[in-house]
Parts: sequence; C-alpha cells; structure tokens
Amino acid sequence: MSTLVLLRHGHSEWNALNLFTGWVDVDLNEQGVQEALRAPQLLSEAGILPDVSHTSLLRRAIRTSEITLNGIDRHWVPVKRSWRLNERHYGALQGKDKKETLEEFGEEQFMTWRRSYSTPPPALPDDSEFSQVGDARYAELPSELMPRTECLADVLDRMLPYWYDEIVPDLRAGKTVLVTAHGNSLRALVKHLDGLGEDEVVGLNIPTGIPLVYDLDDDVKPTTRGGRYLDPAAAEAAIAAVANQGR
Amino acid sequence: MSTLVLLRHGHSEWNALNLFTGWVDVDLNEQGVQEALRAPQLLSEAGILPDVSHTSLLRRAIRTSEITLNGIDRHWVPVKRSWRLNERHYGALQGKDKKETLEEFGEEQFMTWRRSYSTPPPALPDDSEFSQVGDARYAELPSELMPRTECLADVLDRMLPYWYDEIVPDLRAGKTVLVTAHGNSLRALVKHLDGLGEDEVVGLNIPTGIPLVYDLDDDVKPTTRGGRYLDPAAAEAAIAAVANQGR
Repeated sequence: MSTLVLLRHGHSEWNALNLFTGWVDVDLNEQGVQEALRAPQLLSEAGILPDVSHTSLLRRAIRTSEITLNGIDRHWVPVKRSWRLNERHYGALQGKDKKETLEEFGEEQFMTWRRSYSTPPPALPDDSEFSQVGDARYAELPSELMPRTECLADVLDRMLPYWYDEIVPDLRAGKTVLVTAHGNSLRALVKHLDGLGEDEVVGLNIPTGIPLVYDLDDDVKPTTRGGRYLDPAAAEAAIAAVANQGR
Repeated sequence: MSTLVLLRHGHSEWNALNLFTGWVDVDLNEQGVQEALRAPQLLSEAGILPDVSHTSLLRRAIRTSEITLNGIDRHWVPVKRSWRLNERHYGALQGKDKKETLEEFGEEQFMTWRRSYSTPPPALPDDSEFSQVGDARYAELPSELMPRTECLADVLDRMLPYWYDEIVPDLRAGKTVLVTAHGNSLRALVKHLDGLGEDEVVGLNIPTGIPLVYDLDDDVKPTTRGGRYLDPAAAEAAIAAVANQGR
C-alpha cells in the first residue's frame, strides 16, 4: 500500500494573459502562489506527508512543489525532475491568445486542439520565439525525442516511461509520492491510473492547487477509481471553472 | 576541468536572535532572503550556470539554493541533498544565546567551542527540545551515525564521503556544481580542497551569500588555492563582520 498525491500548479502569468503556454517556462503569478499555499494546508489536515517529490522541468510546477513542501516541513525530501512530466507541448499555439485563436479557427477546430485525444496542433517551427529547441534543460534529448507539438496521446506515451521507471519504484517501496505537474501530464496519468477510455479523458478536468490523492494497492492500482480530492467542494467548483476557460 | 560553486546561506531567524543554531531547522529571515537574491546576480554576471545542485537537509540552505537557481533560470537542474552537508551539530549549545554563553563560560571556553578543530561542545540530550533525534528526515540514520554534538573534525569526517561519492562524480563528468550549505560544512570542504592545516582552518571564515568559485583540474584539485569570491570586496568586508559575531 502506498499513497500518490497529484498536484496541478495554479495560475501563471500567461493564464492571466489568456495565452497558450505549453512548454514555455512561465512563472506562477500571485494568484498561483496563493493556490500553492493551500496545498500544504490540505495535506497537513489530511496527515499526508510526502517522502519524495517528482516535478516537471517547468518553473510553475517546480515552485508549486517547493511552496507545498516548505509549507509542510518536507522541504528536505528527495527531488526528481523530468521533461516527461512537462505540460503538453502546444505546438504552433504556444504564445497565442486563446480568445483570438477561438475566433480565428472557430469553435470546432479550437476544441479539437484543446481536447482531442489524438489530434495535435500544427508543429511549432524551431526558429519560433516560443520554441524550446536549444534550451539547455533539454540538451540531452536527441532531436527526434524533442516535441514540436503534442496531443494527449503523445503526452501519455512520453510520460509513461517516467511513471514506470521512476515513480512506481518509489510507490513500491511504500513511499508517499508527490507529483507536481500540469493539466495535461496529470490527465494522462489519471487516464492510465483509472483506465479511462479516450472519450472519458476528453471530459476530464483536474483543478489547480487541490491535492488529488490515490491510495494504491500492491499492484500500484487505485483502491478507489478517481482517487479523492482533499477539498472536494472546491475541486468541484474549480473543475467547472476550468471547463469554461477560453470562453 | 570543472567548476565548483560554494554558497553559504545568509541570515536566519536565529542569527537575528543571536542563538546557536546547528541542526535546528530555522528559516531564513528577510535579510537572508535578500542575501540569497544577490547570488544569482553574481553568478549571472560571471556566466556561471550550475548543472546540478547539492544541499544540506536544512531549510535555510535549501531555500537559498532554490532562490539562487530560480534567479538564474536553473530551477530545473537535478537536486541532491544530504545530512552530510548539514551545519555542524552544536551539541548542548543549540538553542542557547551566544552572548549569554560567552558570559557564562568565558571567552576561552566560548572560542574553543566555536573555533577549536577537535573539541566539540557537550552532547545534546536526546530529550532536549533542540534535539533532532526522531526527526523524520534522519529516520534512515542508525543511531550511532546521528550526531549529538560535533567539532569541525567530525564535520569533515562525515562530509567527505558525500564529497567523494556524490559531488566528485558530478565534477568528473565536467558539470558545474553548486553546493549550498553552511559555515562549518563549507569550512570543512575548503580545508579539504585547499589542504589547510588544523590551525589554518580555525581562522577561516566564509561569508554568506557570495558564491566562492573553485576551478578544478582533472584530479579535482583547485587550480588556484582559496578559489575566488565573485564579489571580492564584499567578501572581505563580510569576513571581518563574521569574525566579530557573538561579541
């Protein structure tokens, strides 16, 4: 038996500007910092103390994890990071205004890019100011592994090796594991954990700043499908708000 | 050839109160946060970008490293932590007022405990409110490894295995390594690097918040004894100030 805590970072500077972010390394804004400060309160009330922390390579997730761990006196736990936990690469949409994109391409295309399981946006050119090709943190990735755009299926494919190779061993060792990441990398992980179909994951929203806790059996399977949010009422309200984003 | 950056955390809440801290996990105060914010400026000006971060298990070093790395866009580098980089365990002095201790025990005893290479203060009882026995972060240390007091020689003994097993491999791989730690764990490391005698290290002060950079040859030896502070004038002034601490 082990415990997995999933935590989605809160508002960033580009949420406030209503821009597609993806792999662009935008910082939390003040609202996002405040959201991050709620997580340790909820974990503390639930008596859930992470033994190890996994994050993406993006600042908004890293800072959320640091604020969370510092707030529950777990700043000292081992930290592991990977690009495999990064947000979905949004391709040519990175840096674009969401409302303008909706107006330019129409509701159907917009929702396909945002929510379709297997249709990625157009690729982002390597010479775009919003490209991460050449970023030092991805220097060890061979070119063919470096995303230029991704759909959710792509995110699941590149996330799963990290799940199996780095997170599962911690869980099998009985540790309480905190994974601080992004809307889409966490949706991919929840799809895997709960065995969601492609249609089901399309409708799945994960609220920000509210720990989602899975109790896992010895085969690393959830004892309760869907896990449990530490503040269920707030989670329900936030899920509704996320669903209306970009409108 | 590789680059080692040593960084001592700045003022903590107990510096302001003039208390011996040691292994007590006191946070930075506002002055300490401001000191930490200078380090990324100095590193950035010098073009020194860490590839990996090593810290103690204490919040004041961890937060200093986080602020530093965030400030030079290196928040994403791998992080390793160890109790072996912790501050010297101050034994029965932990939690005591420095000025009162000086008055109670006299200048000679006070300076022996503060500066002697091989004389530790009396051991801290396990039932003291300032003991770390039973702290979750040290749960994997067998009792005989858990310090109850330390002199600088003890710190060197327990620090060196981490240096050889965790830091040196990163340096041999050509990485730029940031070690964010404490006055005495860094003094022990500098003693080792510069081959200082016991008498020499007694007079060594390392200023807070100013990166100390060692360029190392292929045998992991400094190309210049003593390294170089990134702000030499500020380092000189700070060294003088530290020498007068507790007076």
